[in-house]
Amino acid sequence: MSLVKPVHAGYFCGQSVTALAERLRAGGLTSVELTQAALDTIARLNPTLNAFVEVDAPVALAQARKADALFAQGQDLGPLQGIPVAVKDNIDTIDYITTYGSAHFQGHRPGRDALCVQRLREAGAVIVGKTLTHEFAYGPTGDRSLHGAARNPWDERCITGGSSAGSAAAVASGMVPLALGTDTGGSIRIPAALCGAVGFKPSFGGVPLEGVFPLSSSLDHVGPIASNVADARLLYGVIAGRAVVAAHRVRPLRVGWISTGTFGPVDAEVDRQVRQVARQWFGDGLQEVVELAPLAAAMKDTLLTLQRAEAYDVHAERMHEAPQLFDPEVRERLVLSQEVRGWQYIRAQAAQALFKTEMARLFERYDYLVSPSVPITATAVDAREVRVGEQDIDVRAAVLSHTSAWNLTGLPAISLPAGQVRGLPVGLQVIGAIGEDDRLLQEMARL
Amino acid sequence: MSLVKPVHAGYFCGQSVTALAERLRAGGLTSVELTQAALDTIARLNPTLNAFVEVDAPVALAQARKADALFAQGQDLGPLQGIPVAVKDNIDTIDYITTYGSAHFQGHRPGRDALCVQRLREAGAVIVGKTLTHEFAYGPTGDRSLHGAARNPWDERCITGGSSAGSAAAVASGMVPLALGTDTGGSIRIPAALCGAVGFKPSFGGVPLEGVFPLSSSLDHVGPIASNVADARLLYGVIAGRAVVAAHRVRPLRVGWISTGTFGPVDAEVDRQVRQVARQWFGDGLQEVVELAPLAAAMKDTLLTLQRAEAYDVHAERMHEAPQLFDPEVRERLVLSQEVRGWQYIRAQAAQALFKTEMARLFERYDYLVSPSVPITATAVDAREVRVGEQDIDVRAAVLSHTSAWNLTGLPAISLPAGQVRGLPVGLQVIGAIGEDDRLLQEMARL
Repeated sequence: MSLVKPVHAGYFCGQSVTALAERLRAGGLTSVELTQAALDTIARLNPTLNAFVEVDAPVALAQARKADALFAQGQDLGPLQGIPVAVKDNIDTIDYITTYGSAHFQGHRPGRDALCVQRLREAGAVIVGKTLTHEFAYGPTGDRSLHGAARNPWDERCITGGSSAGSAAAVASGMVPLALGTDTGGSIRIPAALCGAVGFKPSFGGVPLEGVFPLSSSLDHVGPIASNVADARLLYGVIAGRAVVAAHRVRPLRVGWISTGTFGPVDAEVDRQVRQVARQWFGDGLQEVVELAPLAAAMKDTLLTLQRAEAYDVHAERMHEAPQLFDPEVRERLVLSQEVRGWQYIRAQAAQALFKTEMARLFERYDYLVSPSVPITATAVDAREVRVGEQDIDVRAAVLSHTSAWNLTGLPAISLPAGQVRGLPVGLQVIGAIGEDDRLLQEMARL
Repeated sequence: MSLVKPVHAGYFCGQSVTALAERLRAGGLTSVELTQAALDTIARLNPTLNAFVEVDAPVALAQARKADALFAQGQDLGPLQGIPVAVKDNIDTIDYITTYGSAHFQGHRPGRDALCVQRLREAGAVIVGKTLTHEFAYGPTGDRSLHGAARNPWDERCITGGSSAGSAAAVASGMVPLALGTDTGGSIRIPAALCGAVGFKPSFGGVPLEGVFPLSSSLDHVGPIASNVADARLLYGVIAGRAVVAAHRVRPLRVGWISTGTFGPVDAEVDRQVRQVARQWFGDGLQEVVELAPLAAAMKDTLLTLQRAEAYDVHAERMHEAPQLFDPEVRERLVLSQEVRGWQYIRAQAAQALFKTEMARLFERYDYLVSPSVPITATAVDAREVRVGEQDIDVRAAVLSHTSAWNLTGLPAISLPAGQVRGLPVGLQVIGAIGEDDRLLQEMARL
């Protein structure tokens, strides 16, 4: 979709997994060569981008040799066999240290793989290392973690977005073709948009969360980051544990452009660029959707209430026993999180159920809703305010503003690269009806 | 089970619904006569006992005439046809004012019947009026409501217990043979025990709550109060909306006496009396159950957290807009309830699920657990401390202490009259395995 490469670009930029899989089977390429290419690219780019926080060449190459041995025996575990994949550092891996981005877990070695990682291994993928996560995935900028800030492949002074910061940077810079991320308020789609990758948040519950460090059990999702939709679809199928199948629709798609401003201020150039791409892809049938405006603020409040209460449940003992080990910004969020009242949480649960019903009704009239994934381009690392139009707005609120409603309502949502603004990537978000993940991936792959 | 009558006793004392139903069908008795007997008894005793807060003779007699007309036509809706029944004032009735015991709802007329009331009407029962509830059912003493305190038929200076205060007093004094109550921490079983009636809290979810004013959605139950188990079973079948069927067991029952003290202090005479009755009913096979002691305090805390958060959810607007309309004691509970944190509520939900699992395990070894329903006898109206052994304890905590764990775990539990101590009734509580309501009722009816 985008032919422009980032400033920091390596081996896998512009490569498709399908093509690599064919070459692996044709015999002209081995998994060891691919894995070595990944390791070499990481060695070259990671000092600048800080995408990977843990790499172990012998461990990775051993997996690659195993994949090659299977090829030699004629055994084929599917399209990911022998393909290098990165895993976000909040997902348990038995062979790589997993810190959840936090000093609380420095050097932590999980006793078992997360279920999605187990499925990757069963598919023959080569896990080359762990990617930087915002501490405990509790932040959308990707610049607060045990390992510092991840850096944007298009401008290393800028954030990647987060919390799946390293996964997006690793894919966008061509260190690996695929990476796993997690998404509680936009944590896959935000860095994918800001780094120029594809990021897919499946329907709630579509990919198992066992072995993924929880942030907010009502809102957490695992999903793929890739350089194109077809690749994202391959990775999604593996972690969902099922064949991805869907007939695409014949009639013209009914696509609703979420009225600009519904979810907060949008940079005018980002708006123009994303809207132009949407029109190019979906044609003049693109309709303006205005019905969401009355819900938007309530959805944001509801998500915040659920997320805060659930996050504090996860971290109460750490906040009590060793609060100093948290990054100050994450700690500040947790201090606020403690304040949510039980009755407010109960109401937020009830509101979430109502919003899900509202969305089911809305999707009777639309096949997809679209909007910018993020209303701004990547800001400077550590910056917390950004000028949009006439006002200074909070960077964290801004980057989350257009994605979080789809965590609350559980709808599948994908961020697609939609060109650049001022030399930085922007993303178009496409939201589908609940459970329509396969159709969404298939129809977006055809664009 | 008890042949001694209370000081304030009327027409229905010692009468069984089954016998009345037979007489109605034999033609020697009409529903109008029975209903008039109920109305006369209420007129005589209610000025002392304050069990009924709303009675409407024409409304009641119209229902009775309808039942008699059906008998005359040979139509039989089942054993409750023509039988006077009382309904707790936190359960919606379209033809009687329903105040939920609160000044917030003075003169309130619901737009429809609660589902359990609808089922009563379909069974041909005659609803003679509404019985006093502790304000919003949020208190176990039955002496704080828009209508003041209900009074114990055995000694009008004493509480009935609550919150189904009027229902228990109405049945125990023979104003009606049957009444509906609700039970969130013991609110059916406590007044049943303190007034000398049978009170049954079904398994969680066994009777629908539509149209019952909520106190705590994780803990609320509707159930029958009656003067014997067979009658309770008839009423339970009607409100559960299904035939109650169960083969009783042939092997000796495995009955566990919950070790005295597990759930807090017990009056020594109450303990002796209830234990003696348990031995008489269940024989020497009665075993001491000690395993609950480590769970008891945690179960109490968990219930309190769930109940508080859920109760505040129900009353937040009223607490904001018109706190002065609450009884001061109820308001004080709500002020505390507001403080429960979201993360604590989440943990309480998880703990509740664990306790349910623990109970399923325990009931692999026991058919029933037994204990005193309430560890003391009825205290003076408005008293808030009572001497048990060497210590002064809080009356409200004491009366709830032995019942609330079975709301938390959802198990069916019945309070059976077990004689008197110092001239006041005591109850034996029998707790069954989850979903074993029918068997519990059948086996207890045979004692």
